[in-house]
Amino acid sequence: MNQTVINAEPDRQDYTITREFDAPRELVFRAHVDPGLFVQWMGPRGLQTTLERFEPQSGGEYRFVQKDAEGNTYSFYGVFHDVTAPERIIQTFEFEGLPERGHVCLSTQRFEALPNNRTRLTILDVYQSGADRDGMLASGMESGVNDGYERLDELLAKK
Amino acid sequence: MNQTVINAEPDRQDYTITREFDAPRELVFRAHVDPGLFVQWMGPRGLQTTLERFEPQSGGEYRFVQKDAEGNTYSFYGVFHDVTAPERIIQTFEFEGLPERGHVCLSTQRFEALPNNRTRLTILDVYQSGADRDGMLASGMESGVNDGYERLDELLAKK
Repeated sequence: MNQTVINAEPDRQDYTITREFDAPRELVFRAHVDPGLFVQWMGPRGLQTTLERFEPQSGGEYRFVQKDAEGNTYSFYGVFHDVTAPERIIQTFEFEGLPERGHVCLSTQRFEALPNNRTRLTILDVYQSGADRDGMLASGMESGVNDGYERLDELLAKK
Repeated sequence: MNQTVINAEPDRQDYTITREFDAPRELVFRAHVDPGLFVQWMGPRGLQTTLERFEPQSGGEYRFVQKDAEGNTYSFYGVFHDVTAPERIIQTFEFEGLPERGHVCLSTQRFEALPNNRTRLTILDVYQSGADRDGMLASGMESGVNDGYERLDELLAKK
């Protein structure tokens, strides 16, 4: 079993997420930029993801909405600063459901090819403050991330 | 005289820049998003700024090149996450002259109206690491910022 490791040190405004996959880097990367694949794994189980806009290239933007069984919706917006296949995605990220707009994360995802057609994904998420980072960690984000990557494992196994 | 104050605390990956202007908020904001005004003040004195792309709206991107008297060029690229007139600009920022690509800053600029038609600009720049932040501070960025805002003072005084 591949484990998702979130490392958040005290008194900082960032964390890292590390996850390995039993699939080649090109495929793991593609699951992050192909809209038909992306919606199949992004986010917690049981939520339906709809892409309102999805332009995964340097200078593009995205907005997606996740809906749960009760009909509650959660919207996310950002811009892609750098999409360099198959190794790097740097983007902004904002949860639109916060009480105040303007709380934004800079997210850097690096895809590293490992032996035996495996891949290591390392994410660095940087926030405008330690409070913003801690708020994200307290939001249940960890279980959403775990869920998402387990769904991605299942999707990759079918490819 | 309005002073530019850069506050970089040790063991952090961000800094703030605070600057007041003797001009109303709408005008100070406009100087940040109007391409014809922007090129007149951005950056150190003696450098010529050319906008290759400048889309100061949420989801837009920019790239500008600064050329010195010897013909050396310095290029900067980023995307606009949030442009909310006249109060907020959140964007990414990358100096393309670094030895390695992918070192990106998340910059949040807030424009606050003060009494007597004055304006306070507060910038929060967040980096992927403390080393990246310290590298930027060591690059001569402080004198570039001071120069730029003095040029902006001069431009605002003519409006």
